[in-house]
Order: sequence, then C-alpha cells, then structure tokens
Amino acid sequence: MSDHHTYKTIEVVGSSPQSTDDAIRNAIHECAKTIHNINWFEVVETRGHVVDGEVAHFQVTMKVGFRIDNS
Amino acid sequence: MSDHHTYKTIEVVGSSPQSTDDAIRNAIHECAKTIHNINWFEVVETRGHVVDGEVAHFQVTMKVGFRIDNS
Amino acid sequence: MSDHHTYKTIEVVGSSPQSTDDAIRNAIHECAKTIHNINWFEVVETRGHVVDGEVAHFQVTMKVGFRIDNS
Amino acid sequence: MSDHHTYKTIEVVGSSPQSTDDAIRNAIHECAKTIHNINWFEVVETRGHVVDGEVAHFQVTMKVGFRIDNS
Amino acid sequence: MSDHHTYKTIEVVGSSPQSTDDAIRNAIHECAKTIHNINWFEVVETRGHVVDGEVAHFQVTMKVGFRIDNS
Amino acid sequence: MSDHHTYKTIEVVGSSPQSTDDAIRNAIHECAKTIHNINWFEVVETRGHVVDGEVAHFQVTMKVGFRIDNS
Amino acid sequence: MSDHHTYKTIEVVGSSPQSTDDAIRNAIHECAKTIHNINWFEVVETRGHVVDGEVAHFQVTMKVGFRIDNS
Amino acid sequence: MSDHHTYKTIEVVGSSPQSTDDAIRNAIHECAKTIHNINWFEVVETRGHVVDGEVAHFQVTMKVGFRIDNS
Amino acid sequence: MSDHHTYKTIEVVGSSPQSTDDAIRNAIHECAKTIHNINWFEVVETRGHVVDGEVAHFQVTMKVGFRIDNS
Amino acid sequence: MSDHHTYKTIEVVGSSPQSTDDAIRNAIHECAKTIHNINWFEVVETRGHVVDGEVAHFQVTMKVGFRIDNS
Amino acid sequence: MSDHHTYKTIEVVGSSPQSTDDAIRNAIHECAKTIHNINWFEVVETRGHVVDGEVAHFQVTMKVGFRIDNS
Amino acid sequence: MSDHHTYKTIEVVGSSPQSTDDAIRNAIHECAKTIHNINWFEVVETRGHVVDGEVAHFQVTMKVGFRIDNS
Repeated sequence: MSDHHTYKTIEVVGSSPQSTDDAIRNAIHECAKTIHNINWFEVVETRGHVVDGEVAHFQVTMKVGFRIDNS
Repeated sequence: MSDHHTYKTIEVVGSSPQSTDDAIRNAIHECAKTIHNINWFEVVETRGHVVDGEVAHFQVTMKVGFRIDNS
Repeated sequence: MSDHHTYKTIEVVGSSPQSTDDAIRNAIHECAKTIHNINWFEVVETRGHVVDGEVAHFQVTMKVGFRIDNS
Repeated sequence: MSDHHTYKTIEVVGSSPQSTDDAIRNAIHECAKTIHNINWFEVVETRGHVVDGEVAHFQVTMKVGFRIDNS
Repeated sequence: MSDHHTYKTIEVVGSSPQSTDDAIRNAIHECAKTIHNINWFEVVETRGHVVDGEVAHFQVTMKVGFRIDNS
Repeated sequence: MSDHHTYKTIEVVGSSPQSTDDAIRNAIHECAKTIHNINWFEVVETRGHVVDGEVAHFQVTMKVGFRIDNS
Repeated sequence: MSDHHTYKTIEVVGSSPQSTDDAIRNAIHECAKTIHNINWFEVVETRGHVVDGEVAHFQVTMKVGFRIDNS
Repeated sequence: MSDHHTYKTIEVVGSSPQSTDDAIRNAIHECAKTIHNINWFEVVETRGHVVDGEVAHFQVTMKVGFRIDNS
Repeated sequence: MSDHHTYKTIEVVGSSPQSTDDAIRNAIHECAKTIHNINWFEVVETRGHVVDGEVAHFQVTMKVGFRIDNS
Repeated sequence: MSDHHTYKTIEVVGSSPQSTDDAIRNAIHECAKTIHNINWFEVVETRGHVVDGEVAHFQVTMKVGFRIDNS
Repeated sequence: MSDHHTYKTIEVVGSSPQSTDDAIRNAIHECAKTIHNINWFEVVETRGHVVDGEVAHFQVTMKVGFRIDNS
Repeated sequence: MSDHHTYKTIEVVGSSPQSTDDAIRNAIHECAKTIHNINWFEVVETRGHVVDGEVAHFQVTMKVGFRIDNS
C-alpha cells in the first residue's frame, strides 16, 4: 500500500431557495451521484439572485475534494 | 432598445439576532424599499457582535447589484 | 481611566453537524468558558467534512475579539 | 481655496456584446449622464454571459472615481 | 422598535498635504456634511502624489459606514 | 421539476495572437465543443508571451460555468 | 494548424510523508497516469497533518495545467 | 545553542484618539507588560470609530511577533 | 459525548538553516512541547534571511491547529 | 551550460487612448528598447483616466519578465 | 509627441523612528536622489521593529511610480 | 550617521531541477553577483514546468530585499 494519496478538488455552485446551508447540501448530494470518495468542501463565494425584492436563490460556490481512486 | 445595460452595486451591512441568512434577507428588504431593480447580492464579510458570551447579532456585509433605470 | 483600550483576537474553528450558524455559536460558547470580555467575531473560512455523501460537520474558522483586562 | 479635495468612488458594471473595452466605455458614458466630475476608473472584475456557445455580453465591474462638488 | 439595523458603506478618498491621519479626518468631515449617522471607517488603500521629489498629498481610500435612517 | 440547480466551473486558458477578447472567445468555442450548457465565464488572470519584443500571444485564464445536466 | 491553443487547469492535492517537493512530484505522477500533455503546475496552498507532535504528511494543493488535445 | 529559533505572532488591536501611530504604540506597550521578547509588528487593518462626525478612535489591528523563550 | 469540537489555531514562525521543510518541522516540535493535540498546520508565508549572499535561515510562518481540551 | 536560469520581473504601467491591449503593447515596446530577453507579461491592474465623460487613457499595470543575461 | 506614456514602479522600504508618514517621506527623498520624475506612491505594507518594548523603527513598504524618460 | 535606512526590493524567479529550496538559493546567488547588501527574501509564488510527466524545473518567484548604499 502506498504511503501517500492524491486528492482532486472540483468547483461547483449549489443553489437553494431556502438557505445557504441547504445550497451546500444540495451541491454535495449532486456531486455524490457520480463521485464516491468525497472528503471535504470549502466555501469560495456566497451570492444570490433577488426577484421582486426577495432572495429567490442562495448560490454557494464551493470546492469539493475527494481522493482519486487507487492513488 | 439598447443592446447593453449598466448596473450599479452598493455595499450594505444587514444584521439579525437569528441567523446569517436572516441578516441577508433583512438587508435586501431594506434596500428594496428604495431600489426597485435589485438583481443579485454577493457576501463580502460575515461578522457578529457578542454580548455575555452569546451571539447578539450576525452582521453580513454584502454588495447588492441592480440595473440603472433606462440604461 | 485610560482614553484607549487594547483588544486581542484569537482564531478558533467551531464545528456543528447542524449548520454554519450553529458552528459559530458553538465556538463562541467554548471561548466564553475562559474569556469573559468577548466583543465580536469575524468569519475567516467555511469548510466541512463529508461522509458517505452527506455533510457530517460544518467547520467555521473565525477570529474572536475581546478586550484585554485593565487595558 | 481648500488645500485638499475629497473624492467618492462608486462601483458599476458595464456590459457590451462587442468587447471589454466597450463595456468600460458604456459604463463611463452612463455614469457621465448624472456625474460631471469623473476622474478615473479601476477594473475590479471581468465576467461575461455565454449563450449557445458564444460570448453574448462582456461584463466589466469597475470603480468609478469623481471629486465631490465644493470639496 | 426593530431588533435589527441596516448599514450602508460608501467609499471615499480623503487627501491632505500634512499626514495620512489628516486625510482620514478630512474625508470624515466632508462626509459628515451630508450624512448624520456615521459610525465607522476602514482604510482600503494609502497612496500619494509626489511633486518635485516631495509628498504633495497623502490620499487615503476608505470605506465609511453609517446606519440607514429608520432601518 | 427541482427548485434548484447545481453548476460546475472549470478553469481554462484561452490564447490568441490578436487580443485578450479573442483569447476569451477562443476558449469559449473550445469548451463548447464538449459542454453544451455554458452560462458564464469569469477572468482569473491575464498574461502573455513576448517574442522579439512583441506580444506573441495573449493568454487569459478564466473560469467557465455550466449547469450540470438534470441537476 | 491553429495559431492558438486552449489549456485546462485542474486542482489536485499531493501528499508525502517526506517533503513538500515530494508531495508535488507524487501529484504530478498521479496526474500523468491519465493526462499526457501536462505543461506546468502552480502551488496554491501548503498544509500538513500532524500526529503525535510530528509531521505525518505534507499536503500541497496545486493547479496542474495541460493543453487540450487538438486545440 | 540551537541553530534555529521559533517565533509566535499574536494579533492585537490598539486604539488611540490621537493618531494611527499612537494606536500602534499603545498596543506595543500593552503587549510588553506580559511579553518580554517582542521583535516586530505588522499592520493588518486600520479602522476607526466616528462619533458626531469626528474620528473618536483610530483602531489598528496588528500582528505582534516575539521569540518563544528557550526556543 | 459532544457531537462537535472546537479547535484553536496559533501562528508561529519556524526557522532552519537547512530547508523550508526543516523550518516547518522545527516549529511543530517547539509547539508540541506545550500543546498535546496538534492536528494540522498551514503555511502562511515563506521568507528568509540572507547573509553574505547565502541563505542563512529559511523562515516559515504557519498556522498550527489543535483541538481545545474537553471541547 | 547551467541547468537553471534566473529571471527578473519589473513592473510597468502602459497607457493608450485606444484600448487595453494597445496599452499592453505600448509598454512591451517601451521595455524592449532597453531589455532584449523579454519572455512574458502578467496584468496586475487595469485603470484609466476619464476626461469630459470619455475614457482618455487606458492604463495597464503589468509585470514584465525577462531572463538575466548569462544566468 | 507621443499620445501615451509608460511608467515604471519600483518597490522600496522607508523607515523612521518617528512615524509612518515620516518613513514614507524618507523613502521618497531617497528615491528622488536618482529618479527625477516621481509621480506617485502606494503603500504595500506597514511593519516595524520593536526594541525593549518600544517601537524602534516604523517600516513602510511602498511602490514608487515614475514616468520613463522620453516614453 | 542617519537614524533611518531605505531598502529596495526586486522580484526575481529562481529555478532548479532539484528542489524549491535550491531554486531559492540559485536566485540569491545570482542576485549576489551584482548586489552586495542582500538582507532578506520573501516567496511570492511557486510554480514549475512539467516535461514527460516529470517535474523538469521548480520555479520560485521571490522578492529580494537589500539596503540602498549610503541610505
């Protein structure tokens, strides 16, 4: 077994009409459909759309990190 | 009709004793009283006041963007 | 009485399985056990651990500021 | 006459389907409709919208600086 | 009475032939002519003009924060 | 239909001997060959190669954002 | 032949119990298993795990750049 | 004697109604009451409180570095 | 048992005449004399002293993170 | 022949009434009068002067890199 | 006469036992001994040396900009 | 003797096929050929070239500081 691993990070933007935390969870769920080793996330930016003077969507840009298989 | 628009961003600080998301919503509501074309916001900084060892207010500094009328 | 005060900031990382706001509150409570003049906090970074495709912990790195006694 | 002046900067987003330079000029023209002492601009961010695989609009966020009247 | 307030920050550039602190004070005085709730400032950048090998003006770019009336 | 979407951003470097705008357009065209939902780009860095005292290539590093299918 | 190329950068985290340079080399080797045009890397962050008061692993986050085939 | 030393930095906020330099000196004096190896400081942020349109306090956030005893 | 922990980070500067990695290890060893839960470090800045045209000391500023006891 | 080279970067500000790209080319031409090994440039900041509501000059601050002779 | 100029910026560190403003003036005076077209400066960093619990020297790192002769 | 000194910093890029530390030392040696008062360096960026899936050169961009003669 190797004494070291390599990880990859991808950048995704999750969104939610409810909350910033929900936007994070939505993005993790979406990524987990195709990536099975997700270890961590890191928030890069928090933005949102406003419609008729109300927050329509929170949008959280985040890096998602996972171990490369067999690395 | 013009093929381009110009937007302006202002910086505001919303506050809330409940949550960071609530601080964002409070600031958007306050801005919407006088600005009717708000399109987006972007969080610049998240801070808070602490009183007697408890978070008394979450304070979220954010840029709020809106289209300039007739631009 | 002096006409000026000196403050110190420390950096802590709060965590919570529930929410980012809860991670902030947890860190403030932990700090308040030993520091009795906490005035403000400032979020430095928001990260989290992911286990089995779900957010296991939100982790919020924050500066916590308090007045130095008798300063 | 005062030996010092005070300036204000506002942040605007200019857009153009043609070029980034054109987006800058469009924003300056829009600002010049209501502000008559503009002295400088500074680019903060360059983004754009993409439609059908083509750049539909260049969007340049910029600070625009001008002297406050009678300052 | 509301349990939360909203603040606005504007960016101004103060100048002074004497000192950086004086440039800050000049900008606050200028802002206070039209804004009556100024609470804080934050220095963004310190620059200056040089003429004949001497500092002719210190120029301090700063954010100035104030509470929005009735917020 | 879901009430939220997830987006992904990738980072690419476009180049052009003509102009920075052309480097952006070249990168968008290259990405559009394999990605059909591109929504926006954001410039991260502008560099260039110099040969014999002339700009040989403008190189624009940019984030390109697109919606994940079925998200 | 085209007069311009397009490059892509991905972000990976290499690790090594020996050294930061070794962590970089490990990540490049791992990437080279599946990408055959790697041209450069750029260090984004250097961190590490500590176990029993010793550095257990150096972890280097880096952008790795390569030319897109046929671009 | 060791061929290397270890230093620690702490972050403090000095204040003064007079000047930014005075705020720095006040913070150094306060730190020197309990730390006897201070070597350097580095300004992180300059802010201030405004009361009745006048600068009431300059506040300078600074890192203060000192050698750890016997290191 | 609590479902969450709180961590603290301190900033130290390690030095070494040999290498940057050695400066990191020296700082971790020094910290481990008084802190028994160190989990991670993060490099903030790499500098060095030069004497007679040779690197006399590498100096690595780093954040060192550890769990607060009983948190 | 050495297996390594040393490069130097200088910072210049190019200007042009026409375009940002032209400001870059003007600065490269000016540098090439006295430096014969220029390899790359990197844009640091884009600003401009405004006169009578029109962009009078684009000003591009850039690092220019070149190999030190015989290094 | 050319319709554009090229400027160069150099980075210097001024020092003074009296004040930060004095450190800036000292650096400008030193530069003006050999450069006759200095136009502006921009503060990059403010640090200082501490000896026996007192500020021994303020040190201001600054960019100094001047027009290249005949450009 | 003057009670203050002025320092200058230049930015150089050292390279080495062996290690990042070696790239730093190579750059210091190269600078020391023409500058005799070098006091410190500070790493700005770490990059590298990759050839055939191996690190061909580590490239370290660094500021090098030295005292101006007779200042």
